Amino acid sequence: MKALQDKIVTEGKVLSDTVLKVDSFLNHQIDPNLMKEIGEEFAVRFQEAGVTKIITIESSGIAPATMAGLFMNVPVVFARKRKSLTLSENLYTAQVHSFTKKETNEISISGDFIQQDDVVLIIDDFLANGQAVLGLLDMIEQAGARLAGVGIVIEKGFQSGGQLIRDRGIRVESLANVASLQNGKVEFVEEISTL
Amino acid sequence: MKALQDKIVTEGKVLSDTVLKVDSFLNHQIDPNLMKEIGEEFAVRFQEAGVTKIITIESSGIAPATMAGLFMNVPVVFARKRKSLTLSENLYTAQVHSFTKKETNEISISGDFIQQDDVVLIIDDFLANGQAVLGLLDMIEQAGARLAGVGIVIEKGFQSGGQLIRDRGIRVESLANVASLQNGKVEFVEEISTL
Repeated sequence: MKALQDKIVTEGKVLSDTVLKVDSFLNHQIDPNLMKEIGEEFAVRFQEAGVTKIITIESSGIAPATMAGLFMNVPVVFARKRKSLTLSENLYTAQVHSFTKKETNEISISGDFIQQDDVVLIIDDFLANGQAVLGLLDMIEQAGARLAGVGIVIEKGFQSGGQLIRDRGIRVESLANVASLQNGKVEFVEEISTL
Repeated sequence: MKALQDKIVTEGKVLSDTVLKVDSFLNHQIDPNLMKEIGEEFAVRFQEAGVTKIITIESSGIAPATMAGLFMNVPVVFARKRKSLTLSENLYTAQVHSFTKKETNEISISGDFIQQDDVVLIIDDFLANGQAVLGLLDMIEQAGARLAGVGIVIEKGFQSGGQLIRDRGIRVESLANVASLQNGKVEFVEEISTL
């Protein structure tokens, strides 16, 4: 997605060979117009997938997922990283390790909001080692729901998560796929349309 | 806001005289179409306020704030509840006590994303004791920015936060204001338009 790649190049900060900071439009400050374009793009890419529900993870997944939900006209559920006192006991849970934050969180989704007849699209801001997506997949499996695929705003193609998920036969659509962050420069994987 | 009040009555769960659970459309599952209407309503109510930035707090504030940002054509910043390893050292911080979760979190916003010439609209999902809004206000003051007002999706009018904030001369616009949750029934404060 050209607008997203341009934004990454102009505003993204390469902190190391593996860390890309996009706090000015995605992870801390949010650009609502770009999120709208991202939501529209996910809706186009998954328009034939029969999606009934989008699942993401707090916090940075919420804005792109909500915009995608608007264009696909389906509800969005965000997995919580900590149990809330007002969440019911009927929970699906999974463990997610973050290599960036060096911590493991339990994520959870209420059983009220994934049903067996749901066709679920997972949306997340980043795909690096794939741990968050694997945790969400685990909960979708627990619920017996069907997976439509995975929509990622920024994939770090040089890390293992994309391969790991695609090797399971799962469709992954990344709107920007970063091939390398070496020498402080963002290089993208050439986009091959799957449509 | 009628559509929101209707949604609260049909889907909200009154767990006690003080706890209203709206996990099916705001706090866990998100209704993107309702969030769009909410964003549009905030944009109408604050259209003359010269807002340059919306500030909210993760996670449930993000969806309504992003939609408001879309209609007001301004960026949205969400305060983080924990420091991220990729956040810079240039931080505004405040302490926020949650009476529901019985815990105090440090919230933070990068100094890169509030400027002295910003006119800030605070948006949050709930206003109960007002602690989250006070924390956000604190950081806006630290930055020397100007406050346009506070937009709340659901105010619990029977708790002290609304009074506390309005007593400071701050404009608070709540799209639904709950007068009482007694006997398991949601009663709303009659809406008086401030336009």
